[in-house]
Amino acid sequence: MILTSKNNPLIKETAALKDKKARKQQGMFLVEGRKMAVECQNSDFEIDRVFVSENYAGEVPFAENDIVRVSDDVFRFLSDEKTPQGILCRVKIPTRALTAPKGKCLLLDGVADPGNVGTIIRTANAAGYEEIYLTEECADPYSPKSVRASMSGVFFTKIYRANRSEILSVLADTPIVVADMGGVNVFSFAPPASFALAIGNEANGISGEVEAAATHTVKIPMQATQESLNAAISAGIIMYVLGKDQFND
Amino acid sequence: MILTSKNNPLIKETAALKDKKARKQQGMFLVEGRKMAVECQNSDFEIDRVFVSENYAGEVPFAENDIVRVSDDVFRFLSDEKTPQGILCRVKIPTRALTAPKGKCLLLDGVADPGNVGTIIRTANAAGYEEIYLTEECADPYSPKSVRASMSGVFFTKIYRANRSEILSVLADTPIVVADMGGVNVFSFAPPASFALAIGNEANGISGEVEAAATHTVKIPMQATQESLNAAISAGIIMYVLGKDQFND
Repeated sequence: MILTSKNNPLIKETAALKDKKARKQQGMFLVEGRKMAVECQNSDFEIDRVFVSENYAGEVPFAENDIVRVSDDVFRFLSDEKTPQGILCRVKIPTRALTAPKGKCLLLDGVADPGNVGTIIRTANAAGYEEIYLTEECADPYSPKSVRASMSGVFFTKIYRANRSEILSVLADTPIVVADMGGVNVFSFAPPASFALAIGNEANGISGEVEAAATHTVKIPMQATQESLNAAISAGIIMYVLGKDQFND
Repeated sequence: MILTSKNNPLIKETAALKDKKARKQQGMFLVEGRKMAVECQNSDFEIDRVFVSENYAGEVPFAENDIVRVSDDVFRFLSDEKTPQGILCRVKIPTRALTAPKGKCLLLDGVADPGNVGTIIRTANAAGYEEIYLTEECADPYSPKSVRASMSGVFFTKIYRANRSEILSVLADTPIVVADMGGVNVFSFAPPASFALAIGNEANGISGEVEAAATHTVKIPMQATQESLNAAISAGIIMYVLGKDQFND
């Protein structure tokens, strides 16, 4: 059977997941494209349904029972892509009790752009930062744009969302590193064995609360004609420079 | 006098500069917002006209002769921003004869996303890569999106655009570093005193021509669950890791 109506309740509630409010209410999010679907399958995430468009010609690596076939028109209604591939999963957002990190971790303190949030998650995953704490002011890491930019990083990191004070409580025993032009050159800084790297808002930087909790300040040195870097670039450079010793090859 | 008509020839030709073809024909581009305008003024770039909207309340740090006052409606027609500030400059694209680099430089080999091109220019400016060579397949560095992402980096780097063979000719005596997962860990690589770092297309990587000319290959090590980084992130990390010794503080 092929669903052809946008008024079908399953289609309506799934399309609604493009909005933050519905994601919160339903506890679900959307994962689009075959590659991302396979990565999701290889993770601990629970795939609830797989939507496949009528004219999708690729392989569908899912049990027939989990698949919902839809018309191309209905698929475009579900999709967030300009040129949809024709395969999209509805996935449960994991619920995790807020706990202290095991090793080096990230604290996103009001990072507002969904593309930056996703790109930072992708880099954190590559660089071996497992826990990522997001304050409530951050863009939703489960939005289609953020999930896409994370390139499956959302599946392989531990994302926690809470208010700033709660996050700072679980980080009470963790050194907190912030970036600021008044800090130590990051290339000559010897990081503690375990730490939380804090990344601030694109326009306003780190909040006063996190700044007060910071134990170390590092800077990325710059030529005089440029006063700052893009937040995701700056996060990527510091994550790798402070975490490089885990890679021995 | 305040220009109120979108049919005014000056307004029409200026608005056209949002498109690549007109930028090429006129040899001009647009620089939007007060901060960017001031940075442009502090550079070697030649500002041709400054457009200011009727209700713009900020300071206009330009000679009255260079200023064209326009209605808010006309300003929105000129602007590429969702919420225009009300100040925009028309600036001459510098013409530079293609020459060999003086120190470490960048070679953008088909970087297609204007945001990535701009972000890479911003990082290059901060990290001290003066010459930036762009192959013809790259996004236009003078598009509004790229200029905005460069955060005035376009004014303080030397941007060259040419075809790939011409660029490789002027780089004939320069070691070329490419990134590939088969390379040496970038954190244990000792770069030559001067080199060109090549950054490839987001989807297809480096071209065969540049790969054949490469003298060194480096990799950014990664956890197994992530297979690549965003092009601008990867460029930023490698630029800084290979260029960090110029910063002594």
